[in-house]
Amino acid sequence: MNAPMPHPAERLLARPLPAQMLSALSARFGPRLSTALAVREQHGRDESPFDVPPPDAVVFCESTEEVAFAVSQAAQHQVPVIPYGAGSSLEGHLLAVQGGLSIDLSRMNRVVQVHADDLTCTVEAGVLRTQLNREVKDMGLFFPIDPGADASIGGMTATRASGTNAVRYGTMRENVLGLTVVTASGEVIRTGTRARKSSAGYDLTRLMVGSEGTLGVITEITLKLHPLPESVAAAICFFPDVEGAVNTTIQLIQMGVPIARCEFLDRHAVRAVNLHDKLGLTEAPMLLMEFHGSAASVAEQAATVQEIARDLGGNDFQWATTPEERTRLWTARHHAYLSGLQMKPGCRAITTDTCVPISQLAGMVTAALDDAEAAGLPHFVVGHVGDGNFHIAYLIDPALPEERERAEALNDRVVQRAIAVEGTCTGEHGIGLHKQGFLVEETGAGSVAMMRAIKLALDPHNILNPGKIFQL
Amino acid sequence: MNAPMPHPAERLLARPLPAQMLSALSARFGPRLSTALAVREQHGRDESPFDVPPPDAVVFCESTEEVAFAVSQAAQHQVPVIPYGAGSSLEGHLLAVQGGLSIDLSRMNRVVQVHADDLTCTVEAGVLRTQLNREVKDMGLFFPIDPGADASIGGMTATRASGTNAVRYGTMRENVLGLTVVTASGEVIRTGTRARKSSAGYDLTRLMVGSEGTLGVITEITLKLHPLPESVAAAICFFPDVEGAVNTTIQLIQMGVPIARCEFLDRHAVRAVNLHDKLGLTEAPMLLMEFHGSAASVAEQAATVQEIARDLGGNDFQWATTPEERTRLWTARHHAYLSGLQMKPGCRAITTDTCVPISQLAGMVTAALDDAEAAGLPHFVVGHVGDGNFHIAYLIDPALPEERERAEALNDRVVQRAIAVEGTCTGEHGIGLHKQGFLVEETGAGSVAMMRAIKLALDPHNILNPGKIFQL
Repeated sequence: MNAPMPHPAERLLARPLPAQMLSALSARFGPRLSTALAVREQHGRDESPFDVPPPDAVVFCESTEEVAFAVSQAAQHQVPVIPYGAGSSLEGHLLAVQGGLSIDLSRMNRVVQVHADDLTCTVEAGVLRTQLNREVKDMGLFFPIDPGADASIGGMTATRASGTNAVRYGTMRENVLGLTVVTASGEVIRTGTRARKSSAGYDLTRLMVGSEGTLGVITEITLKLHPLPESVAAAICFFPDVEGAVNTTIQLIQMGVPIARCEFLDRHAVRAVNLHDKLGLTEAPMLLMEFHGSAASVAEQAATVQEIARDLGGNDFQWATTPEERTRLWTARHHAYLSGLQMKPGCRAITTDTCVPISQLAGMVTAALDDAEAAGLPHFVVGHVGDGNFHIAYLIDPALPEERERAEALNDRVVQRAIAVEGTCTGEHGIGLHKQGFLVEETGAGSVAMMRAIKLALDPHNILNPGKIFQL
Repeated sequence: MNAPMPHPAERLLARPLPAQMLSALSARFGPRLSTALAVREQHGRDESPFDVPPPDAVVFCESTEEVAFAVSQAAQHQVPVIPYGAGSSLEGHLLAVQGGLSIDLSRMNRVVQVHADDLTCTVEAGVLRTQLNREVKDMGLFFPIDPGADASIGGMTATRASGTNAVRYGTMRENVLGLTVVTASGEVIRTGTRARKSSAGYDLTRLMVGSEGTLGVITEITLKLHPLPESVAAAICFFPDVEGAVNTTIQLIQMGVPIARCEFLDRHAVRAVNLHDKLGLTEAPMLLMEFHGSAASVAEQAATVQEIARDLGGNDFQWATTPEERTRLWTARHHAYLSGLQMKPGCRAITTDTCVPISQLAGMVTAALDDAEAAGLPHFVVGHVGDGNFHIAYLIDPALPEERERAEALNDRVVQRAIAVEGTCTGEHGIGLHKQGFLVEETGAGSVAMMRAIKLALDPHNILNPGKIFQL
């Protein structure tokens, strides 16, 4: 069963910032420490549909040393710290369920170094992914992880983000080489190196990636970069049914076609982006694909895909080879979530994030759509289908608890089906506040107990983003 | 400074198996429990040049439940357990420095399931990599990680192995999806799923991968498989100097050529494989490369490589396109280590395993070779140069401590240089007994303290492969 949102009564566990700590922070940070309600409320919020418990104060840090100072203070007074990047997480990661100090990292936005020859760079945690790509583009490089939102690299690391390019380039898990981390005691450690592989002890880098701020505050990240492909082509293709679109993807993956991106939009999602971006696309299940490589390789991949898609009912192939045409399509894809929300004015979305073995994907999407139709809730589907990951968003009126319950019940069924086929409740958004019950079902009480043991060993006073992933 | 080998006096820390435990094991395992000296000595040994401290007993397990039983006994009596796969590790991982129970997993050699549609499989820990590849070949699939030795999948997981295909397909880190693990208390947990990505809580899978048996006994592994490429071609090419060979590799990587394997052999290594495999190769710095893809893509990659190599002095390109020709070349490569040892009868090898950012590689290899020449120790170099990882093996007479010291001093310099350029002391072999000092230098005392805290949280009585990676 899905864990319910923490009841407001749990705010009784709040650990307010003592005056002594506030004055120490104020002495160090001056006007970069804020207790203004508007600032606090902004920092107790993310893109999740939950109510906001704000932190007690917000500090805007500009260096690892400043973060270490702030965390040392929190450690001394045993109050929570919650790292804040761009505020784009989706699972309540930023909600200050026990109050405490929000550490805003958005001013740590320097690309510290780029080693173009080695295809690596080191960035501060507040660097945004689009900013990084702007800064390395002229060197012929790019950073492929693209979760849609213009998230911070620190936040993407903390949630193990992925997105549209993961099918070819992997997720944050595969693209982070090393980290600078402030531990629960305020100490600064380095994990990993700039070497592309290592067998040197426990993989602390991968332990921190996806730890949602509960094991340390990530302040710098060393990343793999990739050469900009010589040639890029994008295509869209429409299908009479969901199966045709998904099965096309499955065959591509099984054949080892090195497709870079393979996104699915159901007819509702296509309608939404049509309304929002005036695209005039056929309102039918659609694949949006991108191919990277040499000109010859891209042409060959494209030919293979057209053949497979045609066999499975795909039609109306449209190619985009100029950067402008591609940008138009991908911008629409990136707007899909916001566009979808606009189909029901004033709504909020409850969004699933299951990821399943790819052979199970068509059945999962179809069942989710059938259930949603039957329940009569407006909804739309977008999916990183090359990875087996899809999102169905249920649009609810936040004033109607009954709609939220109906959406949660649908979400529950989607997750149960995913777990039954050895999939995961979250492909890329994280556990946060909302999926803690699912985590236990998915991985078992023994594994969660091991996670708890690690958490207690590294953060004995539970000051690092408490209440997220699991309850202690 | 490199940590010295544990002094024989540390055997004072030995924690012998009590009679009560031996009789419980004997009752459960019958003749599959052995205390015969020959069996124990075989299980206290690996491919490292260290003397053998044997375990007190060896148990041959045939299921996860049996492993859980054996570990429960060890937990109850607080004696060490050391998982044993194929015995091919290189850093003393199997040496029973405190005595205890060796858990031989070689009879857990079943491929439990293959999901060809999903490109995943689940195997028991004792399955050998060549066996797995034999079993999935007819389904058009392969498992790419190839450390040379016919290692067990469990051992490869525990050491975060990689090898010749990592440049394209990644290491064990990227190819393990999930695990069954027996914890220090004898409990069985599952980590990960069959989904290709997940953000569900701490990445226990990656924490176990590379933990060298110190955090749990891995009994089953769920792996990614890959489609057999439509077309494969291998090539060798010779260079007037080390720089030409290494710089060819660097340019290929920087251009994003999707080369599958890119191995370097110095002239000594070429001479060794000539002697061993009667190959008649030019005794000069050599690259051995392999390309995977469609026929057109392989042809295109090959043309690019020839052009780059020629610019850097490469000559005498020889292509191997039939499976037999390729096998002949790769068999020679796999024999390089043993062939090298035969250059100095009765010798043992001290082998480096540094991995550096690729722009630093040519300088590293050249400096290592210059030092070795100056020291007058026979040596040879093989390298997974596409990853920035190379091995220089110093051939020493085990009866001459002075030769060992000289080799260790050379090894030390290679590692110091690698760490100075943000590389790692071990790309794929692990820390084991021998590199514990390097680990601290590389990652810092704070990171090693974090590893220790995790170890103590998960294995409070230090029964899981004690004395490896770090001293508690």
